Amino acid sequence: MKTIAVILCGSGFKDGSEIRESVGVFWALSQHAVQVRCFAPNTPQTDVVNCLTGKTVLGENRNMLVEAARIARGEIQPLSALDTSRVDGVIIPGGFGVAKNLCTFAKEGSKGSVDPTLKKILEALYAEKKPIGAVCIAPALLALTFPGRKFELTVGGTCEVSQEIERLGHRHVVCSANDCVVDASHRVVSTPAYMDDQAPLHEIFAGIQKLSGEVVKMAVG
Amino acid sequence: MKTIAVILCGSGFKDGSEIRESVGVFWALSQHAVQVRCFAPNTPQTDVVNCLTGKTVLGENRNMLVEAARIARGEIQPLSALDTSRVDGVIIPGGFGVAKNLCTFAKEGSKGSVDPTLKKILEALYAEKKPIGAVCIAPALLALTFPGRKFELTVGGTCEVSQEIERLGHRHVVCSANDCVVDASHRVVSTPAYMDDQAPLHEIFAGIQKLSGEVVKMAVG
Repeated sequence: MKTIAVILCGSGFKDGSEIRESVGVFWALSQHAVQVRCFAPNTPQTDVVNCLTGKTVLGENRNMLVEAARIARGEIQPLSALDTSRVDGVIIPGGFGVAKNLCTFAKEGSKGSVDPTLKKILEALYAEKKPIGAVCIAPALLALTFPGRKFELTVGGTCEVSQEIERLGHRHVVCSANDCVVDASHRVVSTPAYMDDQAPLHEIFAGIQKLSGEVVKMAVG
Repeated sequence: MKTIAVILCGSGFKDGSEIRESVGVFWALSQHAVQVRCFAPNTPQTDVVNCLTGKTVLGENRNMLVEAARIARGEIQPLSALDTSRVDGVIIPGGFGVAKNLCTFAKEGSKGSVDPTLKKILEALYAEKKPIGAVCIAPALLALTFPGRKFELTVGGTCEVSQEIERLGHRHVVCSANDCVVDASHRVVSTPAYMDDQAPLHEIFAGIQKLSGEVVKMAVG
């Protein structure tokens, strides 16, 4: 049976993994005969944001793995335990945490850097020809991890993020929330999800469902 | 346009609203031409549980409204602001928080009590002949709120919870995760969701989708 890894980084759209997108990935993968394994860094989030007011909560610390366990219902392991030889593909849901916790894109854009553990994992998966799915803002993380590789990626419409992705040597493709962009030659799939925050949730789920199906299909197992 | 209220109580299966079930409700409702309004008590959770270890975190406090805002993407109001005359139906996702934060069922079973603000809201909705949807453990909350009313309710298979529901003067109906039980005479709909924690997520979503459709259909608007 194919094994698909899902990488989370907290639980919440403003400081961790986007909850709805993460659940959408689990929902989509449950429709395939695959094993799903969930991972998150066992380190503190960059910050904790009150998701009602949008304000940073000073002095509070939350751990990415512990918070992501809320979405994963406890079935999650530290990212450092992800052995790429034991998974056949990976999907990274979005959320502001992806751009703050997993890389520094939120602060530094195309000049940012990627968490070293994650960078090594993604490079290994790519070298092993395993598919990578990136939801919402996660394509920016891929752009930073693989500069100059000319991936075809989408974050929805043309925007500041899509321009930074192009600055990193990739091609941005406009795409609606209910669809995904497949870069078959690099085995990279992306879907805009809440980058279009006006899209109804069932359309976002349709896009995530297509992305997940493509990742499963490309995974060799 | 019909308005459906969704009542949350935190964000996490062990101390708040079950994240996946809550997202399932939003996903299902997004498929109907309804307005969705989200509410949670603006008070502290009963406890904070580390969802990785399952252990209570001593000395930590989290507010139900603030945490639920993670699922609601900030679009949520205090439960005390829920004016029943302005909504046409309500859905309550599950999660251990429902049995700990919204009532005392987790501790006291059929001898428990319901949060007074919520009790008043549910009694008003019932009196106004508006439908109530209850996911997972939430039927136990309804059983406590309306003792002796002979609702037809499901929490999946026969278990301790279903026995407590019957002790409260209701009828428990066995039901699978991908389905729901409709009590048309009392306008109450329930689905087992993660009460069957072996069910694949897409089947749980199918049950929630049926429940949401029934609630929308029964809502007069």
